[in-house]
Amino acid sequence: MQASQRISGILGGGSDGWDVFNKAREMIAAGTRVTELTIGEHDIRTAAPILQDMHRAAMGGHTGYASVPGVAALRQEVARRVQDRTGVPTAPENVLITPGGQAALFSAHVATCNAGDTALYLDPFYATYPGTIRGASAKPVCIQTRAEDAFQPRASDIAAQAKGAKSLLINSPNNPTGVVYSRATLEGIAQVCREHDLWLISDEVYDTQVWEGAHISPRALEGMAERTLVVGSMSKSHAMTGSRVGWIVGPRDVISDLINLATHTTYGVPGFIQDAALFALQQGESFEEEIAAPFKRRRDIAHRVLAGQNAVTLVPAQGAMYLMLDIRNTGMSGEDFAFALLEAHQIAVMPGESFGRAAAGHVRVAMTIEDSAFEAALKVLCVFAQNRQSPA
Amino acid sequence: MQASQRISGILGGGSDGWDVFNKAREMIAAGTRVTELTIGEHDIRTAAPILQDMHRAAMGGHTGYASVPGVAALRQEVARRVQDRTGVPTAPENVLITPGGQAALFSAHVATCNAGDTALYLDPFYATYPGTIRGASAKPVCIQTRAEDAFQPRASDIAAQAKGAKSLLINSPNNPTGVVYSRATLEGIAQVCREHDLWLISDEVYDTQVWEGAHISPRALEGMAERTLVVGSMSKSHAMTGSRVGWIVGPRDVISDLINLATHTTYGVPGFIQDAALFALQQGESFEEEIAAPFKRRRDIAHRVLAGQNAVTLVPAQGAMYLMLDIRNTGMSGEDFAFALLEAHQIAVMPGESFGRAAAGHVRVAMTIEDSAFEAALKVLCVFAQNRQSPA
Repeated sequence: MQASQRISGILGGGSDGWDVFNKAREMIAAGTRVTELTIGEHDIRTAAPILQDMHRAAMGGHTGYASVPGVAALRQEVARRVQDRTGVPTAPENVLITPGGQAALFSAHVATCNAGDTALYLDPFYATYPGTIRGASAKPVCIQTRAEDAFQPRASDIAAQAKGAKSLLINSPNNPTGVVYSRATLEGIAQVCREHDLWLISDEVYDTQVWEGAHISPRALEGMAERTLVVGSMSKSHAMTGSRVGWIVGPRDVISDLINLATHTTYGVPGFIQDAALFALQQGESFEEEIAAPFKRRRDIAHRVLAGQNAVTLVPAQGAMYLMLDIRNTGMSGEDFAFALLEAHQIAVMPGESFGRAAAGHVRVAMTIEDSAFEAALKVLCVFAQNRQSPA
Repeated sequence: MQASQRISGILGGGSDGWDVFNKAREMIAAGTRVTELTIGEHDIRTAAPILQDMHRAAMGGHTGYASVPGVAALRQEVARRVQDRTGVPTAPENVLITPGGQAALFSAHVATCNAGDTALYLDPFYATYPGTIRGASAKPVCIQTRAEDAFQPRASDIAAQAKGAKSLLINSPNNPTGVVYSRATLEGIAQVCREHDLWLISDEVYDTQVWEGAHISPRALEGMAERTLVVGSMSKSHAMTGSRVGWIVGPRDVISDLINLATHTTYGVPGFIQDAALFALQQGESFEEEIAAPFKRRRDIAHRVLAGQNAVTLVPAQGAMYLMLDIRNTGMSGEDFAFALLEAHQIAVMPGESFGRAAAGHVRVAMTIEDSAFEAALKVLCVFAQNRQSPA
């Protein structure tokens, strides 16, 4: 029996650019010690007090069906948080709690696009984006950003593809580039959305990890609250990746529709997890800074290490838990470089090509291992690049 | 900004038949004491040892991204369980762990239907079925079963709608009727599926609650393993409704596609919940019998109460946690009956009309309150029906 085309084609065919990642996994499974700089996951676990609160909630009886839109107190807390951070009036009715940011991304595309509609996204992109759009039976259309712009998208490039499209998906602070979109970038994007009547789906899951400048939520820009769906998550900000809890913030009527979708796709999020998420949010900013601190620290280490060489160039590392390194001086593709580095030094990084075409000739380094090992690996990477540099 | 038609139309428009349910909720919120016989949720909470195991797993560090297809040991245990219970060879590669049975139902429709394809389901139906199909951008087409057949579907009725359809969704033991499909019924359904090249989506979440006869999984019938997706869940069998953990069992290639879909729709199920599900499954049959026992006991109570009257007739109560009562002797619709019962006696039952058209003139009684209160409410219902019986 044949599966539907939309599911069998969800990966889009061809190489998915994850060969280096898979190779590293195979080496680890075979017993090789690999320095893993591939994955966007903290090197700490979810904090014990959060897990203890979850257990209290479960033992206290919050084990039946939870309210599908989300537990009232959590919706309230997320609304308050978003309003405080962005200045946009936000009520619980603007919030749907979802089982993680990925579910929010998917639902947002179902809510904005009908089957066959065009959904725009930017290259380089987080790995699941095109498949998320295909899974929602929409048509993914990719817009290239440019290394020479430090991957800040140009409004004109988006406008050129916007005719007839229904939505645009953006992500700032950005995975994989580590770039934070400037106000000018976001104003340009907002204008294209208004002019072409696009929904903006704004993935802001790294919004507590900003090292330079400030995070601006485009929902706060003029005329954007009515056409923006913000995707949020506890994964990165609170080291709760495995708890699968996030949210969508948007206009009330669309949230109301999204609640109906949630009833039919997931039937809500475990109540004890929602209680734990509320507890975690109530720990306040200092806790979030603590979770973000290792990445900030390692970014400083990277600046120090990279200052001493000119073989690789760092894309402005403004936010999120990644560094994007331009290795074009070596004359190698990102994929060849990553493969060679893995073979020679058992250091695994992600080729820029894993994230589309725009970051070809780059590699992404996740700052997700202990400081000294991170520093050592980065030094090896630099020497490796130096030795492969094309003769001037 | 307009949401997509598929999401704004997910409920299908018109009354959803849940007015009585909503009215009961309002009365409770206003402080009225209502006997609630509407909801398919146990009157016990998730057992403490399961929650303690979950906490051990979380504190032990299983808080990062879990394997998207499911934790290996849980996939293995579900495969073993399904093979033991059905005789069909089942490997971990035939299993995808999902965040609950509802997510499995949704994913199964995405996997079998393209946008616009026809998906069949049977009336009366669990409330989410048509919206699940619409949410998956497929076209729901309903096939009536008949009270005179005790709601066992007729193969000829299904065959009459099968041309060009892609899938058929069934549910045995059945919510809302409490009927368990006979071997003859399932053989007839299987034949229609084979002849019309239909996928069969078999929702078997009540498979541990069988009071008469035996549960037969249609995946075990000739030629059906290759065209059947079985939906399972820990919700009903282990009183873990709020944990949102379930599965799909099906052919390897489709499960492989479904894993890709899961990557793009949910990114898996919390690892500590999967560990707790494994622990719960390992408690064995006696634990499952303990969870099912209250419903079995209350069904016996119902038989005793109903034996003494002839105002209402019980549809054969063969499984699941519901009784379907034929109240047509009163000359009232299920909805009028339920409203009147709620007003007169503050007893809330679901009109058969909440589940489609086939169970009009019936009410569904959930056996989900303590025995003596259940018995008392049922007695009141019978006298109420008696007093409203049409003169002979």
